[in-house]
Amino acid sequence: MTTTRERIIDATRDLFMQRGYAASGLKDISKAGEAPIGSLYHFFPGGKEELAAETLRAAGAAYQALVQAVFDSEPDIVDGIRACYDGAAETLRATDYADACPIATVALEVASTNDTLRQVTAEIFESWTEAAAAQLARGGIDHDRARALAIVVIAALEGGFLLSRAAKDTAPMSAIRDAMVALVAAET
Amino acid sequence: MTTTRERIIDATRDLFMQRGYAASGLKDISKAGEAPIGSLYHFFPGGKEELAAETLRAAGAAYQALVQAVFDSEPDIVDGIRACYDGAAETLRATDYADACPIATVALEVASTNDTLRQVTAEIFESWTEAAAAQLARGGIDHDRARALAIVVIAALEGGFLLSRAAKDTAPMSAIRDAMVALVAAET
Repeated sequence: MTTTRERIIDATRDLFMQRGYAASGLKDISKAGEAPIGSLYHFFPGGKEELAAETLRAAGAAYQALVQAVFDSEPDIVDGIRACYDGAAETLRATDYADACPIATVALEVASTNDTLRQVTAEIFESWTEAAAAQLARGGIDHDRARALAIVVIAALEGGFLLSRAAKDTAPMSAIRDAMVALVAAET
Repeated sequence: MTTTRERIIDATRDLFMQRGYAASGLKDISKAGEAPIGSLYHFFPGGKEELAAETLRAAGAAYQALVQAVFDSEPDIVDGIRACYDGAAETLRATDYADACPIATVALEVASTNDTLRQVTAEIFESWTEAAAAQLARGGIDHDRARALAIVVIAALEGGFLLSRAAKDTAPMSAIRDAMVALVAAET
């Protein structure tokens, strides 16, 4: 059973993915989440900024858990990397290129305009980096090297979402997958 | 001497970099470009969408020319790749992480919401890919391989802008530079 609060956050996450922060008005969120505006302020007294921060944190944690589950199902780290990119490409195709990273659009919008939300996005990317580095370390790569590689793998995935969504084509994501698989395989 | 039309486009590009498409209202653009709203409609009768399309095309071409100039000044392709990432990091530091890619934020905002602008961003990324592939081919890499590598190099740069702006730190861009330099060096 989904609570009203969860429904509001899920609707906000979907709007952030599809159109970003500025274009997602509280009215749009209220409509998509089937919750009155008063309910939004009840759960998030700080208004849109507080709702955005909570949505980013929840979506960031959920995305990390999803990637973790992919890695858990692939004993080999190189297979895990390949499966992450293939899963991202498959989701793009299945959702007409709408369902990508729930953080990136907002992160770029707020980086120079809202320091509270910028810090939230920085914490999420840091958490993803540490989680990916831990996976790579599991493959036998030392920690500093694993962190650097984790940054590259995450940045390339984000760039792949950008290029594949713009082109409505998963070819960029496939080229990036092949390069990252080779990069990680060379280190393990 | 900058014309009014150029001043409007430059102001729009800066606003797109700092806050994206949705948060850049015609009033903001009018103020930043020191041009009355009537002047915006005189030069861009199609309104904000037409102004955005022209701004993206101009900024995309200017960015491509800038990267081309970096490559022209570096006879070795691997040095050229390194110089591009170092230049991007230097610009981020010098502008308090505001001056990054003039296309990416808007591209993510419009990918699922405005197909006209999505296609404009796709054409820019395609143009960048072909230009980067031509540079890599100059380093002796065959065309198909050069195109795949160009996609990876551009995606990683975009991901680097995202992670470095969020963290207000050029460390992600440096990690990505080292990986891309190694990737291209291994092919030449």
